[in-house]
Amino acid sequence: MKVTLSALDTYETSFTPLVVIELAQDVKEETKEWLRNRIVAKKKDGGAQLLFRPLLNKHEKETLGNDNLYLVGASRVRLLLGAEALGLVKESTDGTMRAFTHGTRHSFRGFHDDNDDFLTMAECQFIVKHELENLRARDEQMIPGCPQAKLYPGKSLLRRLLTSGVVLQVFPLHDHEALKKLEDSWYTRFSLRCQPIDRIRGYFGETIALYFGFLEYFTLALIPMAVIGLPYYLFVWEDYDKYVIFASFNLIWSTVILEVWKRGCADMTYRWGTLLMKRQFEEPRPGFHGTLGINPVTGREEPLYPSYKRQLRIYLVSLPFVCLCLYLSLYIMMIYFDLEDWALGVHDESGTEWTSVLLYVPSILYAIVIEVMNRLYRYAAEFLTAWENHRLESAYQNHLILKVLVFNFLNCFASLFYIAFVLKDMKLLGQKHSVKVKRKVQALKVNIDATFYEQVILEKEMGTYLGTFDDYLELFLQFGYVSLFSCVYPLAAAFAVINNFTEVNSDALKMCRVFKRPFSEPSSSIGVWQLAFETMSVISVVTNCALIGMSPQVNAVFPESKTDLVLIVVAVEHAILALKFILAFAIPDKPRHIQMKLARLEFESLEALKQQQMQLTAESLKEELRKGGKEMA
Amino acid sequence: MKVTLSALDTYETSFTPLVVIELAQDVKEETKEWLRNRIVAKKKDGGAQLLFRPLLNKHEKETLGNDNLYLVGASRVRLLLGAEALGLVKESTDGTMRAFTHGTRHSFRGFHDDNDDFLTMAECQFIVKHELENLRARDEQMIPGCPQAKLYPGKSLLRRLLTSGVVLQVFPLHDHEALKKLEDSWYTRFSLRCQPIDRIRGYFGETIALYFGFLEYFTLALIPMAVIGLPYYLFVWEDYDKYVIFASFNLIWSTVILEVWKRGCADMTYRWGTLLMKRQFEEPRPGFHGTLGINPVTGREEPLYPSYKRQLRIYLVSLPFVCLCLYLSLYIMMIYFDLEDWALGVHDESGTEWTSVLLYVPSILYAIVIEVMNRLYRYAAEFLTAWENHRLESAYQNHLILKVLVFNFLNCFASLFYIAFVLKDMKLLGQKHSVKVKRKVQALKVNIDATFYEQVILEKEMGTYLGTFDDYLELFLQFGYVSLFSCVYPLAAAFAVINNFTEVNSDALKMCRVFKRPFSEPSSSIGVWQLAFETMSVISVVTNCALIGMSPQVNAVFPESKTDLVLIVVAVEHAILALKFILAFAIPDKPRHIQMKLARLEFESLEALKQQQMQLTAESLKEELRKGGKEMA
Repeated sequence: MKVTLSALDTYETSFTPLVVIELAQDVKEETKEWLRNRIVAKKKDGGAQLLFRPLLNKHEKETLGNDNLYLVGASRVRLLLGAEALGLVKESTDGTMRAFTHGTRHSFRGFHDDNDDFLTMAECQFIVKHELENLRARDEQMIPGCPQAKLYPGKSLLRRLLTSGVVLQVFPLHDHEALKKLEDSWYTRFSLRCQPIDRIRGYFGETIALYFGFLEYFTLALIPMAVIGLPYYLFVWEDYDKYVIFASFNLIWSTVILEVWKRGCADMTYRWGTLLMKRQFEEPRPGFHGTLGINPVTGREEPLYPSYKRQLRIYLVSLPFVCLCLYLSLYIMMIYFDLEDWALGVHDESGTEWTSVLLYVPSILYAIVIEVMNRLYRYAAEFLTAWENHRLESAYQNHLILKVLVFNFLNCFASLFYIAFVLKDMKLLGQKHSVKVKRKVQALKVNIDATFYEQVILEKEMGTYLGTFDDYLELFLQFGYVSLFSCVYPLAAAFAVINNFTEVNSDALKMCRVFKRPFSEPSSSIGVWQLAFETMSVISVVTNCALIGMSPQVNAVFPESKTDLVLIVVAVEHAILALKFILAFAIPDKPRHIQMKLARLEFESLEALKQQQMQLTAESLKEELRKGGKEMA
Repeated sequence: MKVTLSALDTYETSFTPLVVIELAQDVKEETKEWLRNRIVAKKKDGGAQLLFRPLLNKHEKETLGNDNLYLVGASRVRLLLGAEALGLVKESTDGTMRAFTHGTRHSFRGFHDDNDDFLTMAECQFIVKHELENLRARDEQMIPGCPQAKLYPGKSLLRRLLTSGVVLQVFPLHDHEALKKLEDSWYTRFSLRCQPIDRIRGYFGETIALYFGFLEYFTLALIPMAVIGLPYYLFVWEDYDKYVIFASFNLIWSTVILEVWKRGCADMTYRWGTLLMKRQFEEPRPGFHGTLGINPVTGREEPLYPSYKRQLRIYLVSLPFVCLCLYLSLYIMMIYFDLEDWALGVHDESGTEWTSVLLYVPSILYAIVIEVMNRLYRYAAEFLTAWENHRLESAYQNHLILKVLVFNFLNCFASLFYIAFVLKDMKLLGQKHSVKVKRKVQALKVNIDATFYEQVILEKEMGTYLGTFDDYLELFLQFGYVSLFSCVYPLAAAFAVINNFTEVNSDALKMCRVFKRPFSEPSSSIGVWQLAFETMSVISVVTNCALIGMSPQVNAVFPESKTDLVLIVVAVEHAILALKFILAFAIPDKPRHIQMKLARLEFESLEALKQQQMQLTAESLKEELRKGGKEMA
């Protein structure tokens, strides 16, 4: 028998706070009451059927005036039903991964009726967040007590509450006991290899665990490149053939590591269940809007938005806008180089103290302009991507990342390209190379012995982790420095490795101590970053071949004909590119045992569908016979 | 209630002959009797449960001595159950495509208990062929009456019978009434657009219908290229910019048409049900061997063969062999060019009649050697691919095609590349261009009024259609001529279009009148040919850019620096390649409505799996309760 949400009525459960909602100071009682009612109300009445309590201070009194903090929790059965609705995938007792359903809960490994560890705390918080976000307006015209905040049927309440300033923030709570355990096995001991990825996943969710997994994998994969690069630097090897060997190794190696990562990633996310989790069948992200209708895939009522409109917005607005910004950025770079030339000219003519200060002005100006542009662009990119109205959070993220990435890539590397291929100034290129801005982090010491009230107040003040974007971007730019101009600067990989060893620790500290706990987000891969890294490795083939072709050592081999040299370089480049594509094609994206398990799942589900069809037909046949019988009588 | 094969016992059906088996003259009665028994025996006794009759001559007597011809048919229920076992997909009454099951037969569109048109004749023949091929040895040590033909458990009987010469051939019968109808709407009227693809599919199956669909689509897609190329030839436009525009159009156009074909193909095969047909879950192809075991995906007993062994065979034997052959072929080509140089030298020195004959000798020798090598290589490729032991027919075909394709590509185009880029003789290139060998076909006139006996005897003598390989290869080489050197020979596309208009008719005539009817083979795409055409279009970017760069008109624009010219050409080439990849990435492989339908199927089947799990859990719970109750009692 299926346990439905209505069966929850009879349950009385202990309250474990999972998520905190902070309301603004001036929120009216009417609004609070309405919000409470909607959160607590039964699912069938359009509520979230969660538990909702005000935060009590140390005297166990409701906090008044100062802190409008409320705790949201959920009963155990509610969480399990939420896990079913979200399609979480868990390992069943026969070793296969299956979508969790409450009705079959006993067939899952690690499930007991008195065991609270079956769902990780990160999963519980994700479920609560999802339920809150999917509280949607029914017949309300506006938020009660807040007439300017209009509503329409299907609008996500939480989103409107946040945009109208009634809700200040929603964040999940840290679990200090679990956090202490995680920290002990993670960054307090200095050993990269042994990052407890599975534990990180249990505490922070898959997206963050994948970032740390990728950081670790990428660093280890860079070690061979660092080791091979070292003697080139130490012994100043500059022979033609050694150059070529180093660059070729780099180019092939970067293809292989990216392909192997895909396999390792599939392995991990299969174990975590997110590889099989069908997020495209989920309810749409809260920011998604459209006319209410029936989803043709799932048959559920939800907002619908025609895909051709989205395509039009992407290709007719976003794409031209991005191109324009890229052009603008290049234009500003050219002005910067002109300015620098001019300053250098002035300084050479009349070398006073003032003119030597003038030498720094173009760089400073350029840095400021770029930073301002970066921020404006990011804001615009977020606006445009939201306006494109993607149904899935992953699609939204991928489109946003792609936009920001292209711009950042250009800002970081366009000047290097210009120096390398237009100015042909390899010395300057080597200097520019190691410029990198490192953000400093300031850890807030969390007091383990604090009361629950103090803990919530403390966490409320912590900064918000804005997602893995900046961390990936840093890695991506690093990969760019390592691969794009590797033959000019063979030490880049070694520095990257050293940097990443410390990066792991500082990032881990940041996650555990500096920021509010982020909501976990199930994901099955690193998404568009895989594409970004692969594209970078293709571009690096072109740049490395060009750099080798331009090096004086290689030019000395072809003293008489430069055209022959260019043709040979182009031929080699094409050969390497062809090899890259063949390699990428020949290495399967998923390990064989995962392929088999996916095929098995597909086979089983298609068989189950056949069975279901059969039963339906048999039932309708019986029905007809019964009717026929009646008529006969 | 599910109708099982045992229910067939009670059926008495009229016999419709579908497939003919020809036995050798000297086959013993014992062997015949055994074969008959195995074919007729019930499924549960390891038989095929088909109908099996000797061919009666015009006097309704069993043919003796001369013609060992037997007819195989199947009852209607047997065919439906076979369709279920093969996972044929049909349209259900609610408009969705579903795997056919006998239990739900009434929910499929066009199914009535007294309607024989539900399965096309091609499908019926495919089912019978599949059943015959999957008759496997049980405890027989050898074929009875044929002690040299050894058997082992799991070995396909039909395959052994064919290799040991007991069975000479197995072929499906033409249906002259349907064939006449098909012909009337196909090639007797001269109109390309209106090929009745759906009817062709009904009569010959999906693989052949897809070939004709592709031929039609490809020809239509070439028309714009032909039209644009025409004035270049007529007005001898040789300006630099016009050249570049023509080539750029060709390059982008060829990408777009291949992407659009993928979408159209998905559309067609969805309608035919083969896009959803899960052939990877089928029983292995008859040539597949291995130790008997349980397939981890389907749970059925079948031969298993570890995938790493296959990989080793591919990468350690097949790949080096192919490379060696390619090298050899190139080597022979170089000898040919040397020989030709030598002959030309002799003729120039002492220009007698004898030496002018000598001029033709190298070409003739080369043509003979290449033809011999081609045949030997094809034989070797078939042997190697069979030895690689692929489980699926499609994998076998793809690997075989890839091997033969690479070799043919080299043989056809290597000399052109040599002429274009080493000899730089554009005149010679233009001449070589239109060399093409056209096979002539001789139609056998089938007499419509012949008796059934005469018809079978006639068809038995017809040639065997060896699959679509040669037809696709012809198109592929044509595409090569059109795209690789399009800017040297702008008329290529026009000639290709004219050729293909006649090709449709001659190929159609070939299928209908020259060859035995081929067994239909369900397929969901043109397989590895898509990859081959796409690769060709990538290579053509490189060759066209190089040719434009080499043209005297373009060279005249850069009189001072050849290096600058090469760099600009390379830059343009990279830009076009990048654009190609972005286009291929941006155009979805399947139309949106097909994507939605596939997602819907996946969603439904996963939901059905959940339901099934729920029922299983509920049943096991009941079982436990029952047991508990007994113990209590």
